[in-house]
Amino acid sequence: MASITDQDNPWGIQCPTLLLDTQRARRNIMAMAGKARQAGVFFRPHFKSHQSAVVGQWFRECGVTAITVSSLSMAEYFANHGWRDLTVAFPVNLLEMDKIQKLAARIELGLLVDSLPAVEALARSLQQRVKVWLKVDTGYRRTGVGWNQPALLQALAIAITRCDHLELAGLLTHSGHSYQARSRDEILSIHRQSVLRLLSAREVIESVSGLRCKISVGDTPTCSLAEDWAGVDEIRPGNFVFFDVMQLLLGSCRAEDIAVAVACPVIGKYEQRRQIVVYGGAVHLAKESTPDPQGRCIYGYLTVPDGGSLGRVVSSAPVVSLSQEHGVIDVPATELGTIEIGDIATILPVHSCLTCALYRRYLCLDGREITRM
Amino acid sequence: MASITDQDNPWGIQCPTLLLDTQRARRNIMAMAGKARQAGVFFRPHFKSHQSAVVGQWFRECGVTAITVSSLSMAEYFANHGWRDLTVAFPVNLLEMDKIQKLAARIELGLLVDSLPAVEALARSLQQRVKVWLKVDTGYRRTGVGWNQPALLQALAIAITRCDHLELAGLLTHSGHSYQARSRDEILSIHRQSVLRLLSAREVIESVSGLRCKISVGDTPTCSLAEDWAGVDEIRPGNFVFFDVMQLLLGSCRAEDIAVAVACPVIGKYEQRRQIVVYGGAVHLAKESTPDPQGRCIYGYLTVPDGGSLGRVVSSAPVVSLSQEHGVIDVPATELGTIEIGDIATILPVHSCLTCALYRRYLCLDGREITRM
Repeated sequence: MASITDQDNPWGIQCPTLLLDTQRARRNIMAMAGKARQAGVFFRPHFKSHQSAVVGQWFRECGVTAITVSSLSMAEYFANHGWRDLTVAFPVNLLEMDKIQKLAARIELGLLVDSLPAVEALARSLQQRVKVWLKVDTGYRRTGVGWNQPALLQALAIAITRCDHLELAGLLTHSGHSYQARSRDEILSIHRQSVLRLLSAREVIESVSGLRCKISVGDTPTCSLAEDWAGVDEIRPGNFVFFDVMQLLLGSCRAEDIAVAVACPVIGKYEQRRQIVVYGGAVHLAKESTPDPQGRCIYGYLTVPDGGSLGRVVSSAPVVSLSQEHGVIDVPATELGTIEIGDIATILPVHSCLTCALYRRYLCLDGREITRM
Repeated sequence: MASITDQDNPWGIQCPTLLLDTQRARRNIMAMAGKARQAGVFFRPHFKSHQSAVVGQWFRECGVTAITVSSLSMAEYFANHGWRDLTVAFPVNLLEMDKIQKLAARIELGLLVDSLPAVEALARSLQQRVKVWLKVDTGYRRTGVGWNQPALLQALAIAITRCDHLELAGLLTHSGHSYQARSRDEILSIHRQSVLRLLSAREVIESVSGLRCKISVGDTPTCSLAEDWAGVDEIRPGNFVFFDVMQLLLGSCRAEDIAVAVACPVIGKYEQRRQIVVYGGAVHLAKESTPDPQGRCIYGYLTVPDGGSLGRVVSSAPVVSLSQEHGVIDVPATELGTIEIGDIATILPVHSCLTCALYRRYLCLDGREITRM
């Protein structure tokens, strides 16, 4: 049933364990790399989702040479594993100038800025040459210069081009509001709007700098669904390597694309309320929720592994609450009879990036372990 | 202002860092130990909140000799640090029978059960003597035998007493639904109801076992607020050691009792929408939210450290969204002018247990570091 039972637990799992379906992950990588190639856009995948040199190698095998990360420690880790062209897609943290300096001396380093104080600090403190991307806010309202703030865009472009060791690489956005979309059309509309806004911001900048700026976009929902890449030079999706329940419900992947799950010991079974409780709580799954099609707030779905893969999703068996170490799962009566205390229940996470961040290694379905940074 | 600025950052913080105000934590421990002593109840604090041998030592200095943990690995860690009387307040995980066996051989070990299969497995597999608590559900509906399921309560008590190496210790509950309460009266009413339900379940059990069973309760809201402990033998609160924004809003602590915070570099400042963005996201704060008094969903509050302590809460500056590495904070215009990119913003977490679980050490306000398990 919906568990790896004794005979299906050849690795002797005793505690919540992060499982990785390598076939699915490699298929996801190949598909996105192929899509970028066909569209003629440069593929600079975000490695914050997997944070593993071994998984990075699978990208290399698909022709990837340049990557995105979200912190300088991640940049150091991947630089130590042979990556030579990295963008840190996070507004520059001025408190880590020493790390920036050291990294810029050994790799081609891209940084993000969205303010004059940040550009001035880089101009003042850095000796090494770095690429600088202008982070543009095209509607997400998290970080970035507003696409419709021409004076600030121009002032930043001028400040960057005035400094010898700063190279204006282009304009970069993350349309994170695509995660709030509730239909494929809405996601595609966010994509089109973001690209148009970036192109408009570029015109403003090119009119004062005279430089040709690149356009970089990247979030898994739009990169998975969009077909029209006119105007875009580079894409930076990350989550697609594993996908998750949130992407499934957004329509950006199929259930059989989800490549990670958490194997959790069943520690309680409650027939009256048709629930099981697993050893697997917020510290094992991460407390990210999403509304399911019935509007309930859920934290994951039970899945039925079938030997070689993470198998099929049981969408009638959602994780309905998480405390520190407990996960509570609704289970239909038909399935409940086949689950016993001491079984392993396997749960697909709502947001795989946050779930994986809680572990130091992946257990592959063939028993091999893969470490993370 | 609401930050540790350069001169206030003597430890050179560069990345999100967990801060611990040791004076507040020690005061919280003393207060709860004193309350238990006065009430004549045994104090078996839950160590899942801090997971640190050093913090454990502060409890020892207040006379604590027995503790609660939520996993066998936590039990092993504290057993290795000299604790000899531990209850694992989590329904027994049958997949860890080897660890149970080894622990039971070296310490006084208490386990939780709420099902016949679990009791039978313990009876069958264990050679060592263990204490067994019946986990009772008094209304939280997470785990436990229903307080109003007399047949199951009796069957479990009989099965336990029939087995030589299982000792029926008593009835134990966690009234986690107190976290959903919205007033002090509601919390006190949950406390009274839980105790009455446990006493009723005990009568049912004593009528067949003839044994005197202990009553153990433990959640920070009720243990902080209740004064009437009639009928209760033992309390097991944990979160109170650090408290957090959730407890503050529940009314179970004061702002000046909150003993942990996360120091986060400011990486963006957005005057138009009166927000700052910090390097400090879901992987640094944990994505737990709570409604604030205005009904907004918040993920923490900015605080203003004042040298020796974590200082005062800025309740007009809530963390309003978290992504993987970013935290977005609303900041009133009056404070915004004093914050610059490159400053450190200090954030009080919504749920300190989950936040602390993301770190391997605490940085105390005197610069000392304390490790976690």
